[in-house]
Amino acid sequence: MTPVILDCDPGHDDAIAIILAAADPAIDLLAITTVAGNQTLEKTTLNARRVCTVAGIEGVPIAAGCARPLIRPLRIADDVHGASGLDGPAFPEPTVEVVDEHAVELMHRILTGHGEPVTLVPTGPLTNVALLLTRYPEDAARIREIVLMGGSAERGNVTPYAEANIYVDPEAAAIVLGSGVPITFCGLNVTHQALVTEDVVARLLGLDTELGRICADLMTFFGSTYRRLWGFAAPPLHDPVAVARVIDPTLVACVDAHVAIELHGAHTLGATVVDLHSYLGHPPNAKVALTLDRDRFWDRVIDAIARVNFPAR
Amino acid sequence: MTPVILDCDPGHDDAIAIILAAADPAIDLLAITTVAGNQTLEKTTLNARRVCTVAGIEGVPIAAGCARPLIRPLRIADDVHGASGLDGPAFPEPTVEVVDEHAVELMHRILTGHGEPVTLVPTGPLTNVALLLTRYPEDAARIREIVLMGGSAERGNVTPYAEANIYVDPEAAAIVLGSGVPITFCGLNVTHQALVTEDVVARLLGLDTELGRICADLMTFFGSTYRRLWGFAAPPLHDPVAVARVIDPTLVACVDAHVAIELHGAHTLGATVVDLHSYLGHPPNAKVALTLDRDRFWDRVIDAIARVNFPAR
Amino acid sequence: MTPVILDCDPGHDDAIAIILAAADPAIDLLAITTVAGNQTLEKTTLNARRVCTVAGIEGVPIAAGCARPLIRPLRIADDVHGASGLDGPAFPEPTVEVVDEHAVELMHRILTGHGEPVTLVPTGPLTNVALLLTRYPEDAARIREIVLMGGSAERGNVTPYAEANIYVDPEAAAIVLGSGVPITFCGLNVTHQALVTEDVVARLLGLDTELGRICADLMTFFGSTYRRLWGFAAPPLHDPVAVARVIDPTLVACVDAHVAIELHGAHTLGATVVDLHSYLGHPPNAKVALTLDRDRFWDRVIDAIARVNFPAR
Amino acid sequence: MTPVILDCDPGHDDAIAIILAAADPAIDLLAITTVAGNQTLEKTTLNARRVCTVAGIEGVPIAAGCARPLIRPLRIADDVHGASGLDGPAFPEPTVEVVDEHAVELMHRILTGHGEPVTLVPTGPLTNVALLLTRYPEDAARIREIVLMGGSAERGNVTPYAEANIYVDPEAAAIVLGSGVPITFCGLNVTHQALVTEDVVARLLGLDTELGRICADLMTFFGSTYRRLWGFAAPPLHDPVAVARVIDPTLVACVDAHVAIELHGAHTLGATVVDLHSYLGHPPNAKVALTLDRDRFWDRVIDAIARVNFPAR
Repeated sequence: MTPVILDCDPGHDDAIAIILAAADPAIDLLAITTVAGNQTLEKTTLNARRVCTVAGIEGVPIAAGCARPLIRPLRIADDVHGASGLDGPAFPEPTVEVVDEHAVELMHRILTGHGEPVTLVPTGPLTNVALLLTRYPEDAARIREIVLMGGSAERGNVTPYAEANIYVDPEAAAIVLGSGVPITFCGLNVTHQALVTEDVVARLLGLDTELGRICADLMTFFGSTYRRLWGFAAPPLHDPVAVARVIDPTLVACVDAHVAIELHGAHTLGATVVDLHSYLGHPPNAKVALTLDRDRFWDRVIDAIARVNFPAR
Repeated sequence: MTPVILDCDPGHDDAIAIILAAADPAIDLLAITTVAGNQTLEKTTLNARRVCTVAGIEGVPIAAGCARPLIRPLRIADDVHGASGLDGPAFPEPTVEVVDEHAVELMHRILTGHGEPVTLVPTGPLTNVALLLTRYPEDAARIREIVLMGGSAERGNVTPYAEANIYVDPEAAAIVLGSGVPITFCGLNVTHQALVTEDVVARLLGLDTELGRICADLMTFFGSTYRRLWGFAAPPLHDPVAVARVIDPTLVACVDAHVAIELHGAHTLGATVVDLHSYLGHPPNAKVALTLDRDRFWDRVIDAIARVNFPAR
Repeated sequence: MTPVILDCDPGHDDAIAIILAAADPAIDLLAITTVAGNQTLEKTTLNARRVCTVAGIEGVPIAAGCARPLIRPLRIADDVHGASGLDGPAFPEPTVEVVDEHAVELMHRILTGHGEPVTLVPTGPLTNVALLLTRYPEDAARIREIVLMGGSAERGNVTPYAEANIYVDPEAAAIVLGSGVPITFCGLNVTHQALVTEDVVARLLGLDTELGRICADLMTFFGSTYRRLWGFAAPPLHDPVAVARVIDPTLVACVDAHVAIELHGAHTLGATVVDLHSYLGHPPNAKVALTLDRDRFWDRVIDAIARVNFPAR
Repeated sequence: MTPVILDCDPGHDDAIAIILAAADPAIDLLAITTVAGNQTLEKTTLNARRVCTVAGIEGVPIAAGCARPLIRPLRIADDVHGASGLDGPAFPEPTVEVVDEHAVELMHRILTGHGEPVTLVPTGPLTNVALLLTRYPEDAARIREIVLMGGSAERGNVTPYAEANIYVDPEAAAIVLGSGVPITFCGLNVTHQALVTEDVVARLLGLDTELGRICADLMTFFGSTYRRLWGFAAPPLHDPVAVARVIDPTLVACVDAHVAIELHGAHTLGATVVDLHSYLGHPPNAKVALTLDRDRFWDRVIDAIARVNFPAR
């Protein structure tokens, strides 16, 4: 089992990422940390608690981190995720609590206490991870790798070339990319291969569990915003793709490439400039995901949702 | 017939664009002007003469324009087009001459003398067109539209997000885009649909003309560089797509969108930032080509090569 | 006598620059060309005619050039120079006409026709000069040097670090600086040494000529805007400093330095970054004026105003 | 007495700033924190210990902070401060130790434990302060003000427009400036008024103490680099000016102005763009020091060096 800390900003796709990371037998989920992104920190933290509560994830500490990006004002995605950040289903009052510790301190304590290097899976803006690496630069050696959802090797989703997680805190992304920790980008170019088509929703409902129904409701709401904003027939389930890469690298095929974060463009701020053809002559500094094994991905996601659910609780 | 001035930097695909513009019955080709780009001005001008000579294009004035971009040093594409800019076939000594007039003066004289507005089809860097619009701003009203090959709504071909024609002189592109003349971008996203597959080469050879063989040789060389540099199975015939759009708009489907030229990025200079989803809230300022009608496009190109050739000459 | 073309955007200080260049025995003023800057091209051209009319400057051709900067919209300085661009005195109907030729063509014709290289003295945005060098790059060898008013080695006057002439068309400045023609910057750091103190105004009035009174009125108006906008006790007479440098280099002491035009800053667009201490390790690419010999400067200016005036006309 | 935390990167002028802050009766020096800047963190921390040892400053905790800027590689100033960062005098083995706590944690503990808001005086890159405000945003309300040495309202000292402290970590400066904490910039424009002329050195030697001699040696070395690098006749004592502003605001006269940190320029990175004339229309967001009361400043500095010294120890 790969020890993992999931740093997220739930968010519909983060919600499924939490469940996948918590339930898949290949991952030992050590902590869930939250950051401002899809919604405010208060809401993303509440949403992490909601998801853990309905999924019966109880032994995993949850800690809240940064409430705003390093330099820029926070830009939330309420147009995509709704006013709560997790619109769609009705959630019961959460019973899972957060620990009284900043996300960065929890990460640091786990990294120093764990016997082996830990994998970080950020699925929101990289503010917490950048702060960790700035405050505790020696922790870089305790991180096996960072496998993140963010960026794109093609077009973006908040500006023509920028994806939301990177755009919200591009300086944090630059810090993480410059830290020397091995890093894998699961960007829109691959997450758009994880479309929640009707048969996927049917499989969720077919589980005939409360959690299955909640996940189906989440996907239905998410699908409605993707249809409205981008004309997608089915919504892409971004964040679980990064978790899947950790679960089994063969699920998400990657190439080595040089990636630069555009911090200076007038129209391209936050673009992840992936040099697939080595135009610029820089040596590769990251792995970039290109292809998703859809069938096996969905099997793994559905299995996790089936496994984690404890309807009696 | 649409009156057209073709401003080009031949270049393999420019060569076919010249033939298509000269021979297609829907276009009245008023002039060919040359600019530095794929190769130096000296070479691109020589190449225009070579193409007109072998294709028997004789009544169309050719004028040389700018030898370097407005602000930046010239960056040629000899890795793609070879040392001559038109490597592959052996060309006879050209017999077609250039006129003793700067490209911009020839354009201006035609624009003021022609009874109706003229369409400009730039298939190289936009230096000449920018200079025309700066020196003779009143000519903007005499240009019906600018239909150019350049940019991309997706990835680039000289840097991850920049296409060569725009990258070589991005400030010129910004001038043209800001001129108020209606503009259509035929970028890599659509020209990559114009792949010169083996059946196309077979049709060229099947013409059983000297020009057909030369065009096939050009495409074979072009294909070899695309295979080597980008791993393409067949090379994309960029520039004729812009000509095809003028010949028949239904050949190249477009959408209205806002396009910005990135002049300031550290890694994205010269990107054409096409806001297909109106992320940034600007009104459309251009048409952007998205889809090529491949079959009809190739028919039109092959027809032109068949028609223009005068082996007896 | 040094053959000079004065490229200007009158403007109060341009007006005195015209008189100084026309009347000083060290200069052979070949032409006056106008550009949009302090006011619209229409107004700066009218003002050049007004100044020549009241000063009796009759044999010098005047030609209008570019009505707007290369890329950016025009930003006029009506807060400094008033609605006419030359507020203050009442001017008679101008009798001096402009020639029917674009400024760039007039420059080019003079440069190619004159036996020896000519000095250009731009005192407005560099749009015309950039266009000349783009359209006729071979003319670079026919320009002895460019001695311009523009930029600053210290603070600016339209933004904290940008001076108006460069800020209005920074890309034009970059073209000129990259042309290889020897260039001297007379920036705010030196023109702020040319303050029109009360004794200078008294000397103008002491000439007891119509032109002396008009110049005094110009300076009084100019002083009122400098007092209001910047709290200056006396206004700086920028443009004549560049003319003075051509008249006698010992009037304006210069150093060799590397100068870069900032084209990309979020807050520093158009700054002339003068590397007086070679921080950045680039070899010098310009002369930068540092010190004005005030007494001899004013003598020369007053002498010119005394000499050029023909009250009998 | 004003409670102060001094965050520094000694450095010759930082050394005097430490002594001034420790010895002046107007300041209650709560801690000294160190950051990489003039030299590596290891060396600046050693230098803080050296200064405290020779000056007999014993009750003030010293803590080391960040070893590198947030995003960019560290750029030290060994050309100015020598290989040790404090070249010139021979220092005895330091006896004062650092506390086993990161600078940011020490700052946070003091800020939360102190009964009243504390003034921060950063005299190095702002990395530590930016990290503090990112990790503990609630501490912003516990900081009375930040009075820093850094930036310039005129020219810079590492590039034409950038001063070293800001240039080394401009993103940190942007974070601090955007934090909402009242901020005062003591930039080069005012610190260049604090020239260590020969009479100042004479006063140091006239104290006839070991510390006076060490300070004189420091100033002599500092003077030699300023003469060599910039041709200064006497070196400017930058950092104590910020301390002096806290001691007595009348020593350093300030104006309210808008300041922006240039993060995007090709030639102006790290410039503090001080809008003294409100060119850009932004409301003031900082105080900017303009004038030093030299005589009273030097009295205060000499007094501190006289007071802190314990030759018997």
